[in-house]
Amino acid sequence: MSQAKAYAARSATSPLAPFTFERRALRDNDVNIDILYCGVCHSDIHVAESDWGPSEYPVVPGHEIIGRVTEIGSRVSKYKVGDLVGVGCMVDSCQTCPSCQQNLEQYCDAGMKGTYGARDMIDGSLNHGGYSDHIIVREEFVLSIPEALDISKAAPLLCAGITTYSPLRHNGVKAGDKVGIIGMGGLGHMGVKFAKALGAEVTIFTRSESKISEAKQQGADHVIVSTDDAQMQAAASSFDYLLDTIPVQHDLNPYLNVLKVDGTHILVGLIEPIEPAVHAANLILKRRVLTGSLIGGIAETQEVLDFCAEHNIECDAEMIKIQDINEAYQRMKKGDVKYRFIIDMKSLKEDA
Amino acid sequence: MSQAKAYAARSATSPLAPFTFERRALRDNDVNIDILYCGVCHSDIHVAESDWGPSEYPVVPGHEIIGRVTEIGSRVSKYKVGDLVGVGCMVDSCQTCPSCQQNLEQYCDAGMKGTYGARDMIDGSLNHGGYSDHIIVREEFVLSIPEALDISKAAPLLCAGITTYSPLRHNGVKAGDKVGIIGMGGLGHMGVKFAKALGAEVTIFTRSESKISEAKQQGADHVIVSTDDAQMQAAASSFDYLLDTIPVQHDLNPYLNVLKVDGTHILVGLIEPIEPAVHAANLILKRRVLTGSLIGGIAETQEVLDFCAEHNIECDAEMIKIQDINEAYQRMKKGDVKYRFIIDMKSLKEDA
Ligand SMILES: [Zn+2]
Ligand SMILES: [Zn+2]
Ligand SMILES: [Zn+2]
Ligand SMILES: [Zn+2]
Repeated sequence: MSQAKAYAARSATSPLAPFTFERRALRDNDVNIDILYCGVCHSDIHVAESDWGPSEYPVVPGHEIIGRVTEIGSRVSKYKVGDLVGVGCMVDSCQTCPSCQQNLEQYCDAGMKGTYGARDMIDGSLNHGGYSDHIIVREEFVLSIPEALDISKAAPLLCAGITTYSPLRHNGVKAGDKVGIIGMGGLGHMGVKFAKALGAEVTIFTRSESKISEAKQQGADHVIVSTDDAQMQAAASSFDYLLDTIPVQHDLNPYLNVLKVDGTHILVGLIEPIEPAVHAANLILKRRVLTGSLIGGIAETQEVLDFCAEHNIECDAEMIKIQDINEAYQRMKKGDVKYRFIIDMKSLKEDA
Repeated sequence: MSQAKAYAARSATSPLAPFTFERRALRDNDVNIDILYCGVCHSDIHVAESDWGPSEYPVVPGHEIIGRVTEIGSRVSKYKVGDLVGVGCMVDSCQTCPSCQQNLEQYCDAGMKGTYGARDMIDGSLNHGGYSDHIIVREEFVLSIPEALDISKAAPLLCAGITTYSPLRHNGVKAGDKVGIIGMGGLGHMGVKFAKALGAEVTIFTRSESKISEAKQQGADHVIVSTDDAQMQAAASSFDYLLDTIPVQHDLNPYLNVLKVDGTHILVGLIEPIEPAVHAANLILKRRVLTGSLIGGIAETQEVLDFCAEHNIECDAEMIKIQDINEAYQRMKKGDVKYRFIIDMKSLKEDA
C-alpha cells in the first residue's frame, strides 16, 4: 500500500477538497505512475456531482493522466522506471470477451472499469483517478507518450482526443470528405484538428454568429450558424459525416438533413433520451446512419497519441493548479474555457 | 395516346372503382406493358386514403407490376415485344445526379418519380399505377422477369422484396450472421427468406405468443416474443442485424439492446417521428447503428428478381380479383393477409 495525496468530492454537493487515501500494493502486472498533469473532463464534474445517478464517494476524478513510471511489477514488460506514460478513461476490462479480443475494451461485455468511480476487478476497492499524486494501473491500460508530444498539453488526448479520433477513424473519414463538427468545446475543437489531419473539408456548426471567428481560429474551412434556417437548408444533403459533440438534448433532424445519401451522424454525447424525436424519413429517404461512439480502445488510444505526435496536434488548454479546481468547474459549467483545463499536479505539493 | 381501364380512388374516402383514362403516347424510349398481375402494397392504401398528406386524385395505385411487352419505342434496346417484364415503385429519376450515377435512383437528388401519385418529368401528367390493363414506362425503369420465376407470385418482389433485400445486402448480411426480423407481414416474411438465403441465423420477433408457430412456418430458426421482457433480456447483445418492418410507432430501445457491439438496426417503415425516444446510450455504449432504407435501385431490383429465381424464393400470396380490392384493403388494415394480395389483372376484363 502507498499513501496518496489527492483532491476528492465527499458528496454530490461538497466542493473538491484535499483527501488522503491508500493506493493498492503493486501487483505483478502493475505500473506505479507519478502524475505530472491531469486534464479536467466534463465527466469529472458529472461523477463528482452525481449527475449520472448516485456516485460512490469519495470521488477522486481525473482520467486524462500524464505521468512518469516510478515502479513496475515483476511481470511488467512494456514499461520501465522513468518512462513517460498516460492513463485514460479505463483501467481494466475482462480481456477475454469478443470486444476485448478486438481491442475494443471500452465495449467489454463485462463492462470496462473506469479510472475512477468503478470498482477494482480483483479486490473490489473503489478506483480513484488522476487528481492525485500517483496512480497504480495494470500495464495493459497504460499508454506510452511519444517524445515529440508536449507533455504539458497531451493529457486531454486521453479522453477528449480519443473520443473524437476513434469515430472519425472507425467510420472511415478520409481525404476529401466533407465533415461537420457540431459543438466547439473540448471535444469539438479536437474533432476539427483530427478531421483536418485526415484530409477532410471541415465545417463547424455553431449556434451563434458571434462564434464564427473563433470557429475559423479552430481551423475550420467553413462555419454554419445552425440557428439560421437558410444556412442549414443551403447545406442540405452535402455532408459525408457529422461529429456531434453537444452533450445536451438538441434536435438532430436539421443536422440529419445536411447529410448526403449514406451520410453518418455520430453522437458522442450521452443525450438522454434523443428528443425532439428523430424523423425516420430523415434516415430512410437518404439511407442515412445515426450512430454513437464511446472513447476508444487501448490500441487506438496509443494510435491517437502517435498520430498527434506525427501531425503536431495538441489540445488548446489552460493550465491550472489543483487548488483552483472548483473555480474551474464553475467556469466549465458556463462554457468559459478554451478548450480544456489541465491541472499541473505539482501544485498538489503546495498544500500543507 | 391509348385508353386504359383501371381502378381508381376519386377521393380519400371513396372506395376504389372502375376508371378510364388516357396513357401517354409511346415515346422513343418507352415500353408498353400489358399488365398480368399487380401486388397490393400498404402504400397503395396510404396514398389512396391520403394518409401521407393530401394525394392528387384520381389515384390509380399499384407498384408491383408483372406484365408482357406489347410495344416498344424506336430507341428501346433492352426489351422486345413478348418479353415478361416488371415495374416497381419508380418510373423515372434524373439519371444524372450522384445517386442515379451509383444506381441508387431511389435516392435521386431531384426526387425519384413514383409509379403512381407522382408527376411525369416530361409532360407533367399524373402517373397512374398498376391497377390498370396496361402501363407505359421508360425502358430504364423496366425489369426483366427471369423464366424460373412463377409470374403469378413474382409481383411483390418489386416492392416488398426489394425493400427487404436491399438493406440486408447493403449492410453486408452474410453467412453465420445473427439476424432478427421485426414484424412478420408482407415485408417481414420476405426478410426471413432473404436472410436465410444469405446464410444467416434468423430470429423473428413477434408481439404475441400465439404467432410462434406461424413464425416457424415462415422459416425462422428462432422466435422471440418481444413483449416478454425476460426473453428480450436473454437476447441482449446477441444480434448482428435487425430488420425492422413495423410500420407504426414502437419503442426501439428494447430492440437496440439485443444488438451486439457494432450491430445495426435497419428501419424500413416510415414511423414519424421515432417515439418513444431513442436512448443515446443504446447507440454510444455499444457503437450501435440506427439506419433506414428505401426500396432499392433498378439494378438491385433486377438483382433481387434474379436472386429469387436462383434460390427459389417467392412471396406467399393470395390471389384476388380487382373487384375485391376494397375488401382486400379492409383485410390488410386488420392484418388479415398471408402475406400479400396479388391482383389477377385479367379480372379487369370482367367489368362491363
Ligand atoms: Zn472524459
Ligand atoms: Zn471484455
Ligand atoms: Zn410498396
Ligand atoms: Zn438523380
